[in-house]
Amino acid sequence: MGPHPAVAAIRLAVRRTLHDVLSAHVTAPLQPVVPLPSPESPASPAGPPLVLVACSGGADSMALASALAFEAPRLGLRAGGVTVDHGLQQGSAERAQDVAARLTDLGLSPVESVAVHVGRTHNGPEAAAREARYAALDEAAERYGAAAVLLGHTRDDQAETVLLGLARGSGTRSLSGMAAVSGPGGRYRRPFLAVDRQSTRKACMVQSLPVWDDPHNADPAYTRSRVRHEALPALEKALGKGVVEALARTAQLSRDDADALDTWTDDAEHTVRTESAGAASGVSRELDTARLYALPPAVRRRVLRRAAIDAGAPAGSLFARHIEEMDRLITAWRGQRALNLPGRVEAVRQGGRLVVRHGSPKN
Amino acid sequence: MGPHPAVAAIRLAVRRTLHDVLSAHVTAPLQPVVPLPSPESPASPAGPPLVLVACSGGADSMALASALAFEAPRLGLRAGGVTVDHGLQQGSAERAQDVAARLTDLGLSPVESVAVHVGRTHNGPEAAAREARYAALDEAAERYGAAAVLLGHTRDDQAETVLLGLARGSGTRSLSGMAAVSGPGGRYRRPFLAVDRQSTRKACMVQSLPVWDDPHNADPAYTRSRVRHEALPALEKALGKGVVEALARTAQLSRDDADALDTWTDDAEHTVRTESAGAASGVSRELDTARLYALPPAVRRRVLRRAAIDAGAPAGSLFARHIEEMDRLITAWRGQRALNLPGRVEAVRQGGRLVVRHGSPKN
Repeated sequence: MGPHPAVAAIRLAVRRTLHDVLSAHVTAPLQPVVPLPSPESPASPAGPPLVLVACSGGADSMALASALAFEAPRLGLRAGGVTVDHGLQQGSAERAQDVAARLTDLGLSPVESVAVHVGRTHNGPEAAAREARYAALDEAAERYGAAAVLLGHTRDDQAETVLLGLARGSGTRSLSGMAAVSGPGGRYRRPFLAVDRQSTRKACMVQSLPVWDDPHNADPAYTRSRVRHEALPALEKALGKGVVEALARTAQLSRDDADALDTWTDDAEHTVRTESAGAASGVSRELDTARLYALPPAVRRRVLRRAAIDAGAPAGSLFARHIEEMDRLITAWRGQRALNLPGRVEAVRQGGRLVVRHGSPKN
Repeated sequence: MGPHPAVAAIRLAVRRTLHDVLSAHVTAPLQPVVPLPSPESPASPAGPPLVLVACSGGADSMALASALAFEAPRLGLRAGGVTVDHGLQQGSAERAQDVAARLTDLGLSPVESVAVHVGRTHNGPEAAAREARYAALDEAAERYGAAAVLLGHTRDDQAETVLLGLARGSGTRSLSGMAAVSGPGGRYRRPFLAVDRQSTRKACMVQSLPVWDDPHNADPAYTRSRVRHEALPALEKALGKGVVEALARTAQLSRDDADALDTWTDDAEHTVRTESAGAASGVSRELDTARLYALPPAVRRRVLRRAAIDAGAPAGSLFARHIEEMDRLITAWRGQRALNLPGRVEAVRQGGRLVVRHGSPKN
């Protein structure tokens, strides 16, 4: 008798990822080519490649850890685990130790609990925690020379991320959710993006793995929690059970579309640029208005956005209405004066050129 | 004292659209260049251009009719109205007469109530009603030689349409909502896509215009009604009040992105096609696999999808998994056999070519 279907599903997903990691490892080793200078580094580029799992102790990442522990040795890989103590809740250090002990029980080695300090950012507490967590995972991955770090995000997490992106209303890229492969050298892998949360819970249950439910996940003070417990169920009720799958598929399609349009934008940028000296100085862009006009609006606006960012406008302060106004200098020219953009950037049309530069001309 | 802000808002939106209609009319008349042969045609290409409003009697289209009646004469345009009696509810004929009378009271002329027969389609009753309605509007527009037909869809309708597209999960095009300009010769115009439903209700109220609430709009048997009354409020509660605006912005950005990618696909189609004879016969496409491989996935999949449709696969039966399998003939070639697609279309790799054709080779 084979394993329970949920266990089979999580193992298959991890096996596919590990195959990918192995091929990437063979063609271009992810371990540092130049050994790290740090004397305490236990990285051993010799020996089988190491794959780490980032584990919070929740069902998703415990299921991931169990599948990694099962599959890695069969493919000649070593499997280790890292749990991050964010220090945000009472008893978090003990819990992190507990999670580490469970990972060791699963047969993972090395296993480490890393304490981080969560600072403040203008993006809110969730973003600050995420930033601290990835910094710790990056550090651990480099220290161990890990070939990959597996993350337990499921299809449900992906659907939530798409809805959060939709709420920003900033287009195709913001709908593309989380990437299956990301980070430096493609370090981070998300094997469960096509696996539903229900399966990870089931897999933990049938394997008798205790899981820890982060109370933050149910706290309505967090946007993601409200999306999970209120918005998605309401969408399913109105639109049918396939919504989560449709959102996850939207993520993949949007990602591919955004990538293709970025490629086109790269190309268009070179075509419309009229002065390489300005480009080299990094403070001024001169773009050919006739060539800009000939581009499809989607590509033209991307080129304009990049020109503003290159000239010093902070990406986070640049809104659709700014790009829209820049676009009108090209498509609805009637002698407008210089346009002020965030970060003391200005865009001004001079004959057949659009000049995007930092600071006013008087400075 | 000027008009109430809601009235000012709907008039401004209509004025902008009428300006667009006028410029389009001057550069390329939308009225039939060849006069319609029908002897009963009251079309008068001479005289001021006529703009029609499609009016159900609901707040959105009554507000639209009132704004059209106010603005059209100021721009030297004639304004008329059409109301469609779908014959789906008891008393619908009387109500249509009543709506027509209100349009006449607003000063519109000509005004017409058109009865249609709603047939059955496999897409459900909402699609069947829509089909019958647009056929009647098309017919009326042609009969009167109208320069444009205005439709009352608001920003809220647009947001709902984006959510309905999201539920299909079929990518950027399905997220692009309704176009501001659509139909033959750009006949249909939606001036209110940036106006919220609340403003149209308010505008009717302050102008003492009676409005009729279609009970279908509140009937939870209809998907759109559930989206309006359940899904959107839940999304707003979870994500904040800006959701409707973000969804409407997503529509515009997605439309532009989808258009740009279609342009690229047109171009790529020509590049990858290896046999023009097959293209001319309309039953077989031969595509160069190396050139396909070099395309970004988003463009390659669009080319593959079009090849399948050109060979006879019904667009509605062609799902993401079909395109995914076609794509694997290019990106993950390991000697797969011929792939069967809907509509008796098959895709088979023959050396450096992908052949997409109708029927089996034995036929």
